[in-house]
Amino acid sequence: MGQARKYRFATPQEAEAAFYDAFEQRNLDGMMQVWDDDDTIVCIHPMGQRLEAYQSIREGWHQIFAAGSLMHFTVSEQIYIQDAQLAIHMVQEHILLDDEEQPRPPVYSTNIYRLGESGWHMILHHASPSPPGDTSGQGISGDILH
Amino acid sequence: MGQARKYRFATPQEAEAAFYDAFEQRNLDGMMQVWDDDDTIVCIHPMGQRLEAYQSIREGWHQIFAAGSLMHFTVSEQIYIQDAQLAIHMVQEHILLDDEEQPRPPVYSTNIYRLGESGWHMILHHASPSPPGDTSGQGISGDILH
Repeated sequence: MGQARKYRFATPQEAEAAFYDAFEQRNLDGMMQVWDDDDTIVCIHPMGQRLEAYQSIREGWHQIFAAGSLMHFTVSEQIYIQDAQLAIHMVQEHILLDDEEQPRPPVYSTNIYRLGESGWHMILHHASPSPPGDTSGQGISGDILH
Repeated sequence: MGQARKYRFATPQEAEAAFYDAFEQRNLDGMMQVWDDDDTIVCIHPMGQRLEAYQSIREGWHQIFAAGSLMHFTVSEQIYIQDAQLAIHMVQEHILLDDEEQPRPPVYSTNIYRLGESGWHMILHHASPSPPGDTSGQGISGDILH
């Protein structure tokens, strides 16, 4: 799958910027440049199946880009934890659809990048819905199992 | 908050076992022994708010343990990625409630542990629902935003 041909991201931040750029532009090749070639990679879209390995993850993005509206992303509430080889980004995605005036409730996303021979690449995107309704307070919603 | 008094987990696997033991036993002190004292920690329960910092996360577990049924956990589909200081566990939790015969649909959880002076402790628990219905196939559900 061409590890040598991978774009070399110098930092996890650079890889993350490319991730959201590709997402907004529905650019499948650009998106898959961000991902590590390894098969030990995982992508979970909100309420979606856990997708494992490069080809499954590529197919997931293909479906999303084929079906979806144009989306504009704003990422906030970033918490970064990093050591020499792994970088963990916990973020909130605020998504504005092309045909909507109000942003959707935020999506919580854990994005993890790994440093390999060809720079930093994504090994996990775990995205999930935030609670419906008011999301300003701290606390957990009443009907969750855990 | 007493880093010196923290239980010293020798491996991320040991910390994870203590996490699910405390979860099943609704043992708040045991649960909080697993978590890092740092305020750069995050806990997201399925469809819950993103909780940040030790005291908010403790209060979240307090609410869950006060309200919840007894739960039995089976963890499967583990994918582990680890370097010297960080360990990422991507798992599926199969939860059987005390008063139910069938397990709930699995919960996808990303659990991250960090090696500090007092051993390995949890810095992230990001849990989210799997898609409703058949979860055996690969693919993404039709109505997700991304």
